[in-house]
Amino acid sequence: MPNRIAALYGDYSGPEMMRAGLAVLKAVSQKNGFEYQIEAYPFGGEAIDQVGEPLPEQTLAGCQAADAILLSAIGGPKWSVGGQSPEAGLLKIRQALGLFANIRPTHIDQAIIDQSPVKASVLENTDFVIVRELTSGIYFGQPREEEIDQALDTTIYRRAEVERIVRVAFEYAKGRQQHLTVVDKANVLATSRMWRAIVKEVQPAYPEVEVDYMYVDAASMKIIAEPSFFDVIVTDNLFGDILSDEAAVLPGSLGMIPSISQGASGKALYEPIHGSAPTLANQDRINPISMIRSVSLMLRYSFKRTDLADQIEAAIAKTLSQGVMTADIGGQAKTSEMVSKIIQNL
Amino acid sequence: MPNRIAALYGDYSGPEMMRAGLAVLKAVSQKNGFEYQIEAYPFGGEAIDQVGEPLPEQTLAGCQAADAILLSAIGGPKWSVGGQSPEAGLLKIRQALGLFANIRPTHIDQAIIDQSPVKASVLENTDFVIVRELTSGIYFGQPREEEIDQALDTTIYRRAEVERIVRVAFEYAKGRQQHLTVVDKANVLATSRMWRAIVKEVQPAYPEVEVDYMYVDAASMKIIAEPSFFDVIVTDNLFGDILSDEAAVLPGSLGMIPSISQGASGKALYEPIHGSAPTLANQDRINPISMIRSVSLMLRYSFKRTDLADQIEAAIAKTLSQGVMTADIGGQAKTSEMVSKIIQNL
Ligand SMILES: CC(C)[C@H](C(=O)O)[C@@H](O)C(=O)O
Ligand SMILES: CC(C)[C@H](C(=O)O)[C@@H](O)C(=O)O
Repeated sequence: MPNRIAALYGDYSGPEMMRAGLAVLKAVSQKNGFEYQIEAYPFGGEAIDQVGEPLPEQTLAGCQAADAILLSAIGGPKWSVGGQSPEAGLLKIRQALGLFANIRPTHIDQAIIDQSPVKASVLENTDFVIVRELTSGIYFGQPREEEIDQALDTTIYRRAEVERIVRVAFEYAKGRQQHLTVVDKANVLATSRMWRAIVKEVQPAYPEVEVDYMYVDAASMKIIAEPSFFDVIVTDNLFGDILSDEAAVLPGSLGMIPSISQGASGKALYEPIHGSAPTLANQDRINPISMIRSVSLMLRYSFKRTDLADQIEAAIAKTLSQGVMTADIGGQAKTSEMVSKIIQNL
Repeated sequence: MPNRIAALYGDYSGPEMMRAGLAVLKAVSQKNGFEYQIEAYPFGGEAIDQVGEPLPEQTLAGCQAADAILLSAIGGPKWSVGGQSPEAGLLKIRQALGLFANIRPTHIDQAIIDQSPVKASVLENTDFVIVRELTSGIYFGQPREEEIDQALDTTIYRRAEVERIVRVAFEYAKGRQQHLTVVDKANVLATSRMWRAIVKEVQPAYPEVEVDYMYVDAASMKIIAEPSFFDVIVTDNLFGDILSDEAAVLPGSLGMIPSISQGASGKALYEPIHGSAPTLANQDRINPISMIRSVSLMLRYSFKRTDLADQIEAAIAKTLSQGVMTADIGGQAKTSEMVSKIIQNL
């Protein structure tokens, strides 16, 4: 039975991004004998237009049946924020599929280091991963209230929710440089103090991993001032949202960065970290690398095809070193040229 | 009656910092005929050692009676975090004195621009202020619970709390470049949606101020990627904590940056943004500028002595341009040398 991949083409630049990713998937698979089957489903703004909600039942069912999910990017000026918004679909799919761990790699491509707002000397040896809790915390905590005279949001963490994300982070740290930084606000928040307690309980199972604790305000400085300090960061949903986007400025373009949202079953959703770039749509200008890297991560983690993932990564590096780059990373290549070149370099 | 200033000398490097600030205050006052009276009170770790709590009643009463408060820095490895910690004293004094608005300027000193992790080209025209709500939100919201199986924190904002901080921010924007950015997470949080509604109510009173809205994750990118975009940022207690520390990496050293925590009555507390630097204490090595600038802000805002504040700022700029700098900003000067030079340059 071939591997089943659900493809959510998304809005504005989303479809172009998805086509780029799938073209590279096709090429690398034909070369190496990887069998798969793509099923496309509406999601986000497109789904709101078609059926009035961002995550239609049929899309959710398709994602549940799939072995892995590829998402490009959703949302844009056509749809409102809040209520039946494209973004609400993101929160729903994360929760419905139990995708509790968001993995955000920060990797510096030497070929585009000049694009970074941060000095090359500061970026030296920077390579870290943020493990963000994705299905709890203030994003989902009840009560949430808007009254006449006050408004209220609730951060709740249940012990089991913290334990599973902390384990994911320790596993990543074990497979990397064995350094885990727990980011919280334990000098103020009760939830942070529970996180620290649970880290201390899990820690003995990972004696090789060195653990340190950092307040979120200090972390927000260190990510820019000394990014090479970090190997794996684990943090809650809200802090992870802020810090992972902050870290995304380091490589020099959001167009380079993929992400994983993974669940307990091993099922995962792969997507670029950036949005649907409405102003670039349909002009053959979007950087396809974030999507192609999402495909590569999918091959590596969901389908255990490290060989194919390595080939894609090598082809991207070669393409960049040949100076074939879209405008966001300082070049003049069109999306289609980058995709052809990457396929040629496979 | 002379102007009454409460001085909280603090821990580790705190007393050195305070002495530096007061030496400059004395010099500039003698030159210009400014009369004042200093009353020192224990606060933070020192107060815990003396009377068992970080904010003794007598200290609070002294601060209440004073026209302005100077604080150096508190805390350090000697005292625990949480419970009767020095930091708990900070939260208490803010609330007890009603210091609801924390003003954090981000100003780039050209003389030390090489110290910044961010490229000089990115820092061009960067000069903004973060207005952080300081006495509400998740820092003070109830319930806060740590149970066996879960923990919980609550973000609450009352309408009046938001309105007063928003007004402070509009006032700052009016006196600067008339550009206010409201930072929140309105696509998720009910409190953020209330903030936006209140901004829209207050806005008509400030027709000259242009207002935009930005999610906190996007803001955490833009502060590094394009800091010159901002003029005044207004945000809640937690987001302000994170973003103002993030912004503090831009100038190149925390040792340069003062802050104001102001209340409704016009009373305010002035302090460097950095901690007590335990490893530098008593070695004549700490950068005194953050404290001297706190004094300058006090003269400007609490005592309306713009002339004295301007003289201090000019003396600091001249001293830096003469290459007299402490180690944190790339020089070899001792604290005492910098202080003498600044006084000489007055
Ligand atoms: C769209 C928004 C709700 C979402 C989040 O905050 O989780 C986005 O910022 C992200 O990080 O994927
Ligand atoms: C010490 C801590 C509670 C405090 C805060 O988070 O407000 C500090 O980080 C600050 O910003 O002054």
